[in-house]
Formats: sequence, C-alpha cells, structure tokens
Amino acid sequence: MQLRRHDVLSGAIAILDEYGLGDLTMRRLGAALGVQAGALYWHFPNKQSLLAAITDEMLAPVTVEPAAAAAAAWDERLRTLARRMRDGLLAHRDGAEVATASYAARLASDAPRHAMADAFAEGGLPVQEAAMAARALFSFILGQTMDEQSRMQMDSHGALDPSDSPLFESPSAADYFEYGLGLFTDGVRSRLSGRL
Amino acid sequence: MQLRRHDVLSGAIAILDEYGLGDLTMRRLGAALGVQAGALYWHFPNKQSLLAAITDEMLAPVTVEPAAAAAAAWDERLRTLARRMRDGLLAHRDGAEVATASYAARLASDAPRHAMADAFAEGGLPVQEAAMAARALFSFILGQTMDEQSRMQMDSHGALDPSDSPLFESPSAADYFEYGLGLFTDGVRSRLSGRL
Repeated sequence: MQLRRHDVLSGAIAILDEYGLGDLTMRRLGAALGVQAGALYWHFPNKQSLLAAITDEMLAPVTVEPAAAAAAAWDERLRTLARRMRDGLLAHRDGAEVATASYAARLASDAPRHAMADAFAEGGLPVQEAAMAARALFSFILGQTMDEQSRMQMDSHGALDPSDSPLFESPSAADYFEYGLGLFTDGVRSRLSGRL
Repeated sequence: MQLRRHDVLSGAIAILDEYGLGDLTMRRLGAALGVQAGALYWHFPNKQSLLAAITDEMLAPVTVEPAAAAAAAWDERLRTLARRMRDGLLAHRDGAEVATASYAARLASDAPRHAMADAFAEGGLPVQEAAMAARALFSFILGQTMDEQSRMQMDSHGALDPSDSPLFESPSAADYFEYGLGLFTDGVRSRLSGRL
C-alpha cells in the first residue's frame, strides 16, 4: 500500500501529541507507520520540513472563511486571526515550540502572517508597515503561547507547585493574551488616527 | 579547593556559548570543572535552577543604573529596558531559549519585568494593568528574540541559503524589534490619553 503524505503527517502529529517534540524522530515515525524511515523522506526530505507541515496543519484554521472574516472591521478581524492562531498552537503538545522553529527556518506557510498584514493594511497602515506590525504581532503570539503551553505542560507533569498552577492563575493566560492583543490594536489605531 | 557558585555559573555559560543548550548537561559541566556532577548540586539542585541563574546573569544589565534610567520619561525608560533585554539575550548562544524556559518555570528573577511594569505605572497605567502590559512586552521580546537568534544561529551553521541570511535582511531584525516596541508604547500612550 502506498504511503500517502497525509498519513505521514497524521502519524507525526499523533506522536507529537502523545510523546512531545523531543520524541518525534523520523525513525520512530517510520516504526509507527510500519515503514522504513527512508520511505518518509519521499514526502518530507528532513525533519524540518515535516515540522513545517505540522505547523501549516495546526494553523490552517487561522485563514479559513476569509470572506466572512473580511466582512468584519479590521481590528475585529485581527483579533479573530490572533485567537485562532493561539487556539491552533495550544491544540497540540509543544505546538508553539514546533511553530517557532518552523517560522525561524522560514519553512512554514506565510499565510497566517499575511492575513494579519492584510487586516492591518485594510485598517489604513501602509503596506510595508502593515507587514512589520503583523510580524510583531506574530512574535507576541508565539512568545505568549510558548510560555502558556510550557506552563500547562509542566503542570500536567506535576512539575509545578499546585498553588502555582496556571489553572488557578488570575489574570489567566487568556486574559494576558487579550490584553497584549488590545495594546497592539490600540497602538495601530493611534498611528492611524495620527495619519488621518 | 572549594567550588564556588560563580565558578559553576561561569562554566555553564562557557559551555552554552561554545556548544549550545543541547550540550549543556550537569555531567559535562562537572567534567569541565573537574568535579563530580554531585558537587554541582550543592549550588544548583537541578538543571532548571542552573538555567534560571544563567538567565538572571544574562539579564542583570537590564536593571543596572536604575537611578539614571528613572530620570528619563517612562516610554524612553521602557525602550531602554527592552533593548537591554534583547541585547542580553542575544549575547549568549540559545539565550532566548534558555530565558523562555526559565521564565515559563517561573524560576528566573522577576526584576526585569517589574522594572518594565514600574515604567508603565509611572506613565500612568493602573498597577495591575501595568503588570499586564509588562508581561505582554516580555512575551513580545522573548518571541522576537527567539526568532532572531534561531535565524542567526542557523545562518552561522550554513543552514540557510545565503540569499536568505538575516545579515542582509531589510528591514532587519532590529528594525522589526523597534517597530514592535513602538506599537506597544503607542498602545499604552493611547490608553493613557483616553484616561486623562
């Protein structure tokens, strides 16, 4: 039976979710799929490209329904894009770490960042500035989600004192996320009003 | 001869700078210092606490000269704190990754973040909001620096196409950093003006 690209990707995500990034190796993935590691390289030439495909899969929901999202005001669209990105990263173990590595290598899709840049540009930022604002927002989301996910995972492994559990943190990680997101959109709004 | 805490810390930073985080183990550190790994545990009960001490050492320059910094306007102080943090993280191999892990474990010093919160509060944000703004800025700095450092290290290992080298990127990582930082301070400024 032929090994399809999507089977490899699903198998990799299953290992990631169950064992984490540290245990996701081509060898282990091959064993889980019942093939030699070499058979995987036909679809993914190296682990970096596999991680990039996982990142694209995790973040595919960010850019779905562009038409409906486009109907909203630019700042509402940005919030939706940012929240979907956070949700996508948190949905898989070590998701933020995988995405951070893939984006640093510039191997994952630029679609989510471009969608954010489009929203900033539609708000009125010049195109090049919109691209910079999107990159800054992207860094914030990755940095914030990495922290949040690391703590949740430490907590689930019993590595945190119960009184220090993120489950009981107030403000919560989601509150911090929303606050930071609001600062960004306010910063952009203030630049736009200076320009009008 | 007695093994001092600072000798252990310096030895650990030397290994980090030369070989990276993946090769920094208690065993290797003990060998480099000519002691059994057990002797290190007297100073650092585990690797997590060692990484936190490295983070504190990297970021010690952020909060030096508080008196001089306090004389500047709140937004200028924030820029100074944020730039010092970026510089401190970039000065050591895998610095951003070490700091991200240490902060997620809440083991590294809160002094840099508190200094940022103080500057936001002095600008006029209510104390709890200032703390949230500081945390958001912290996430942005960690996320942005992680990306920047990963790319520089990939480039120095020849893992990037020369045309894709961050050395020739325009806008540069420093430009992106300054732009993001400006959005944050503008966001805060717009909230302050709404409050006056």
